Amino acid sequence: MDSTVTIKDVAALAGVSVGTTSRVLSGNPSTSPAARERVHAAVAELGYRPDARARSLRSARSQTVGLLISDVRNPFFADVAHGAEQAALRSSYVTLLANANEDPKQQDTYLESFLTQRVDGIIIAPQGEESAHLRALATTVPLVFVDRTVDGFEVPSVTSDNALGIDQAVAHLADRGHTRIGYIGGPRSISTGRARHDAFVRAVARHRLDTDPGLITSGDFRSASGAVAAERLLSGAQPPTALLAADSPMAVGALGALRRRGLRIGSDVDLVAFDDIEWFSELDPPLTVVSHDAQAMGSTAMRLLLDVIEGRTPESVVLPTRLVVRESSGGARRQA
Amino acid sequence: MDSTVTIKDVAALAGVSVGTTSRVLSGNPSTSPAARERVHAAVAELGYRPDARARSLRSARSQTVGLLISDVRNPFFADVAHGAEQAALRSSYVTLLANANEDPKQQDTYLESFLTQRVDGIIIAPQGEESAHLRALATTVPLVFVDRTVDGFEVPSVTSDNALGIDQAVAHLADRGHTRIGYIGGPRSISTGRARHDAFVRAVARHRLDTDPGLITSGDFRSASGAVAAERLLSGAQPPTALLAADSPMAVGALGALRRRGLRIGSDVDLVAFDDIEWFSELDPPLTVVSHDAQAMGSTAMRLLLDVIEGRTPESVVLPTRLVVRESSGGARRQA
Repeated sequence: MDSTVTIKDVAALAGVSVGTTSRVLSGNPSTSPAARERVHAAVAELGYRPDARARSLRSARSQTVGLLISDVRNPFFADVAHGAEQAALRSSYVTLLANANEDPKQQDTYLESFLTQRVDGIIIAPQGEESAHLRALATTVPLVFVDRTVDGFEVPSVTSDNALGIDQAVAHLADRGHTRIGYIGGPRSISTGRARHDAFVRAVARHRLDTDPGLITSGDFRSASGAVAAERLLSGAQPPTALLAADSPMAVGALGALRRRGLRIGSDVDLVAFDDIEWFSELDPPLTVVSHDAQAMGSTAMRLLLDVIEGRTPESVVLPTRLVVRESSGGARRQA
Repeated sequence: MDSTVTIKDVAALAGVSVGTTSRVLSGNPSTSPAARERVHAAVAELGYRPDARARSLRSARSQTVGLLISDVRNPFFADVAHGAEQAALRSSYVTLLANANEDPKQQDTYLESFLTQRVDGIIIAPQGEESAHLRALATTVPLVFVDRTVDGFEVPSVTSDNALGIDQAVAHLADRGHTRIGYIGGPRSISTGRARHDAFVRAVARHRLDTDPGLITSGDFRSASGAVAAERLLSGAQPPTALLAADSPMAVGALGALRRRGLRIGSDVDLVAFDDIEWFSELDPPLTVVSHDAQAMGSTAMRLLLDVIEGRTPESVVLPTRLVVRESSGGARRQA
């Protein structure tokens, strides 16, 4: 990146006027989608960074931040949103939420909208790989990643210790005597999908369990895909005796699939999920989970974002995980 | 309301300039909170209505709408939000979500923010009684109520048939032989809290069940309050043999309270909830519910809002409810 790049260079490469470039970079809504796309692509290609002081002089703060979560119907992200928003209110910021619905195109639509809304900063659980859009965003507005990251971005992030969490789950299932653990992973295009998959492969090797690649499936982090993956794992010639799902909606999907096959969960087949939610202890059976604190993740992400907005450069945070053993993997039966 | 009221009258009563009044009414962020409050109060007192055509000439549409839900962690509202947002995207509108967190003050903070963001319209599940703030909002921007309404507002709404739903639940429990049904209601300050309470009182009378007022409690529509209410009902001298919770988080709270007392749900005590959610059939035991379609409620509300934005005057919609009997009130035990 060349720090002598100016707005004129961006305008020339984008093939639009300096005025249009300036309006796009300041989030002015009176610009065409085509112009915005060309300017963002040019910003990314040239590595242009607007002067932060000039930017703060140019526009008063809106005291509004954007939070783009992956799936509003996933209770984990609802808890992240709640934690972030309450932290923002304590600092007199309001949070506009948007829902990417696990869809990169929808993510880009909402990021565009946040910019035209002139938010002071954005927290995002990104949908996937680096995009010119996301790259341009990082140069335009204070940005923090939550739960998920994108390789190659120097953006503060709050994530869980995915490797620790997966290892806790695999060690627990190995202790229970399982050698064939079926893994229901998330998309490899998403950082948590990759990190949890890689940790699973390492943990299986470390605990000398069966490394059969047929034991590894992946879904899209939503419940229907968990049911499909569980069905595929259980219909094989030598089905696994335990399932580990990489998020809670997929675990709920797997729960239904196991029951439809007449399998008793916690005795015929064990089931463990990444993510804990208030009402998971009320499921039938209560789920053993890798617990990480979603509300703390949200409030920490907001603290980092407000630091960036104030001109500080906070360190990224990795939150610990904790295994909570319940009846779905041999925990004590609850009463009544 | 006097239709000859002008912006000058509003400015005079508010004690601010016409320019400031105009900026407040157009959602310009460069106004003080005090000025905004005085202008909104004056608008409400005078019943001032800006000319809709003048307003649409004055400002280009932002293609952005605001959706203020009551509690992002309540899966019912997450489903409403999902339905609304998908409908908006189909019409090239993006939806900014905000979470009132069942708090009227937080509601007002976010409404203010939506106005400064220049949204084209707002869908809101209102927190409670009429306020000058909400009154002013209804004259400033296209508005639709979802799930909940506020008396005295001529605003299109999408609600459930609360009376039908409660009657379906009470009739089912009466058929099961219950005469003492404990009711865990929502706040009486919220329309759904009032409507479901009144419907419960009428249904109990119609089915000639015990009208003991000690059988009626109320929470705040969140799970902890459901646990407290269930505990109070069950610790009485003559406890109810069935519980009906006015929303799903309170039902999950009641489920935990019942189990902690060692009561078998569906045999010792029946439990029925208003609201259905995808994973309720996976609870222990699966919950009997009054089902209404949260996603359809969200998408219908968005259709109404887009109609209002386009200058039409849509009729309010009342969606039907349906009783789904599961094991928590004697439905067939599921397998495995």
